[in-house]
Amino acid sequence: MGGVNYPPPAQVSTSRKPIVVALLGCGTVGGGVLQLLSENSEALKQKIGVPLEVAHVLVRDPKKSRVAECKDEWVTTDPDVIFNDERVDVVIEVMGGENPARNYIERAIEKKLTVVTANKLLVAMHGPSLIEQAKSSGVDLAFEAAVGGGIPIIRTLRDALNGDRIESMHGILNGTCNYILTRMRDEGADFQEVLNDAKELGYAEADPTLDIEGLDAAQKLIIACMLSYGSSFAHDAAPTEGITAIDSLDFSAAANFGFTIKHLAVARDLGETLSLHIHPALIPQTSALANIDGVLNALLIHGKGLGPCMLMGRGAGDLPTAVSVVADLVDVARARSEGHCGVTTRSVQVGSRKLAPL
Amino acid sequence: MGGVNYPPPAQVSTSRKPIVVALLGCGTVGGGVLQLLSENSEALKQKIGVPLEVAHVLVRDPKKSRVAECKDEWVTTDPDVIFNDERVDVVIEVMGGENPARNYIERAIEKKLTVVTANKLLVAMHGPSLIEQAKSSGVDLAFEAAVGGGIPIIRTLRDALNGDRIESMHGILNGTCNYILTRMRDEGADFQEVLNDAKELGYAEADPTLDIEGLDAAQKLIIACMLSYGSSFAHDAAPTEGITAIDSLDFSAAANFGFTIKHLAVARDLGETLSLHIHPALIPQTSALANIDGVLNALLIHGKGLGPCMLMGRGAGDLPTAVSVVADLVDVARARSEGHCGVTTRSVQVGSRKLAPL
Repeated sequence: MGGVNYPPPAQVSTSRKPIVVALLGCGTVGGGVLQLLSENSEALKQKIGVPLEVAHVLVRDPKKSRVAECKDEWVTTDPDVIFNDERVDVVIEVMGGENPARNYIERAIEKKLTVVTANKLLVAMHGPSLIEQAKSSGVDLAFEAAVGGGIPIIRTLRDALNGDRIESMHGILNGTCNYILTRMRDEGADFQEVLNDAKELGYAEADPTLDIEGLDAAQKLIIACMLSYGSSFAHDAAPTEGITAIDSLDFSAAANFGFTIKHLAVARDLGETLSLHIHPALIPQTSALANIDGVLNALLIHGKGLGPCMLMGRGAGDLPTAVSVVADLVDVARARSEGHCGVTTRSVQVGSRKLAPL
Repeated sequence: MGGVNYPPPAQVSTSRKPIVVALLGCGTVGGGVLQLLSENSEALKQKIGVPLEVAHVLVRDPKKSRVAECKDEWVTTDPDVIFNDERVDVVIEVMGGENPARNYIERAIEKKLTVVTANKLLVAMHGPSLIEQAKSSGVDLAFEAAVGGGIPIIRTLRDALNGDRIESMHGILNGTCNYILTRMRDEGADFQEVLNDAKELGYAEADPTLDIEGLDAAQKLIIACMLSYGSSFAHDAAPTEGITAIDSLDFSAAANFGFTIKHLAVARDLGETLSLHIHPALIPQTSALANIDGVLNALLIHGKGLGPCMLMGRGAGDLPTAVSVVADLVDVARARSEGHCGVTTRSVQVGSRKLAPL
C-alpha cells in the first residue's frame, strides 16, 4: 500500500452537506442548466455523493420570463448577494462576454469558490491568467462548455491524451460557417441567400462577422492549443480567413476532383513553434470530416501514439452546452465535497510556446 | 465557503512519494505503456504531481524479447513478488483473457491497490462485480482501454454525459469487420479474399470468429451499456449477427440507393428495457458513420439534451490502447497520491435494467 493513507470509501449519504450553486446569467444555456439539474437531480446526487442546491441566479432584468425551473426566490440582480453568501460553493458563469463576467469569476476564485464557465471569449482572452489564479487558490475552474458545446473536447485534450503528444488538430469549430457551406454544397445556393436563411433560423447572429470571418473558430482553437500545448496566445493571434469569398461554383469544381470544402481551424506542432491557421480548405470526400454537416462541429486530433481521433457533435445550443456545464459541475462538486479541489486547473500546464512565422 | 475545509493547493514536489506501478503482462500493449511512460515521464510527473516508478513486470516467459524500455530487473514470473511488495500502488493489467487476470485483479483490489485494465473480456464478463468490489475497497478500477482502444469512449460515457440521458448508441466497434467491409465496398472484393489479406496484415486473428461473428463488438456494447445505463447483462446477452453473409453485390445494390453497409452495435433505451442488437446495417452515405473506414472504430451517441455526438479513432493497436492505459493511470495515480481513491468506480452506478424481448 506504499504508506499512503486512504479515507474510507465515500458513501452516498444525505447527512453530508449539499453543494450550493449560484448561477451568473440565466439565458438559454443557464435555463438549460436549471432544466438538467431538475430533471436529473437524483442521478446527479448519486454521482456527486451529496445533493446540489441552487441558491442564487444573477440576472439583469428580473422581470424577464424564464424557464419554469428557475424559482423566483433565487433571482437577484445584485452580485454581492452571491459573494456575501458563505454557503455558496460553486459559481456557474453563463452570462457570456468579457465584463463583468471576468470580474465575477476573479472575485469567485479569490473567495476560493469553484468556478464553471461556458464563456469562450473569456477563456480565449484570459484563460492562462484565470487558470493561474485558480491554481494559486487551489480551486477548480472548469470550462468544457466554452469550446464545442456538448462535445467533450476540453476533457479529452486535458485528460484522455495525457500520455500522448498531439501532432495536429483539424477542427470544424463554427456551426454557422458549416451550416452555410453545407447548404451551398447541397443546393448550389448562394452565400448571401443562405446567410439570410441562417439569420432567420437563429443559426447566425444579426451581425455574423465573428462567425463568418473565422474569429469565433480562432478563439476556440486558441483554447484547444492552451490545453494541448500549454500555449498562451492572444485570442486573435491565429491568421484567419473566413468563408465570404466562397462561391457555389467552388463546390462543383471541388466535387469534380472528389473534394468538398470545409472551414477548418488547424494547429500543427512544429517542435519549437506551433502553426495555427483558420481558413476554408479542400478536403477529400472520403475524409471523416467531409460528412460533418450542417451545424455540427468536429475536432480531428492526430496523436503520436493515438493516431487519428475525432470528436463530433453539436457545437452550440442551449441543451448541448448545458450538458457540458453539468458534466463539469459533477466533477468539481464531487471534488469539492470530498475536499480535493483544483484537479481541472492543475492538469493544465500553461507554458510559453511560440507561434510559427507565416 | 460552505464550511468545507480545503487542503492547500497541491504543488509539484519531488519530496512526495512516487507512485509505484506493477505491470501484469508485457505484450504489445504493455510494451506500448512502458514506451509512453518513458517518453513522457517529465510531463506525466507534472500532471500527477509525483513521479511514476515501475517496480515489476509480470511475464510468462522471461526470455522473450521485449521493448528496450522494459528493464531486466523488473521482470518476474511470480505474481507474489508483486502482491507481497508493500511499495506497489497501482497494478496495470494488460495480459488479457479471463484467468488468471481476474484472480490477479481481485487480489489487487483486496489489497487496496488501484487497478487499470485493458481487458475487454474481463470487464464484459465481470465488470459489475469487479466494480462493486473496488467500491467496497474504496479503490479505483479504470478500464478506458477495454473499449475502443485509444478512443475516449469510457470517460465520455462515465463523465461527460453525467447531466444527460443517453437515448441510443450506434457503434462501429470492431476494426476487423470494418476493414473487411471497407475493402469489399471499395474494391468489389470477395469476403474470403479480404479476410485472408486481413490475417496476413495482422488485422484478423488466425481464428477470426469472435470478430467476424460480432461477439467482440457485442462485448464492447455490453460495457458501454454498463456505463450509460447501469445495466449488468451477460457478456453474450445481445442478439448478434456477423458479416459472413455479406456479399460484394450487396454493396453495389446499397450504393444504388445512396447507402453503404457497416457492421453496427446498437443500443436503444426503451424506458423500462434496453434493446441491444449487433448486425450489418444499411446506412446513408451522408451519415457521419459512413466515412468511418478501414480499421477505425466509432461510437455515435444520441443524448436527450446533447443530440448526436460521435467519437472516432483507432479501436485497437499497441500505442492507441497504451495511450488510454496511461490516461487512466494519470487519473488514478493523481487521485491515489492525493489520498482520494475510488472516483472512477463510484461514478458507475450498476443497476438492474432488463433486456427488451426480441
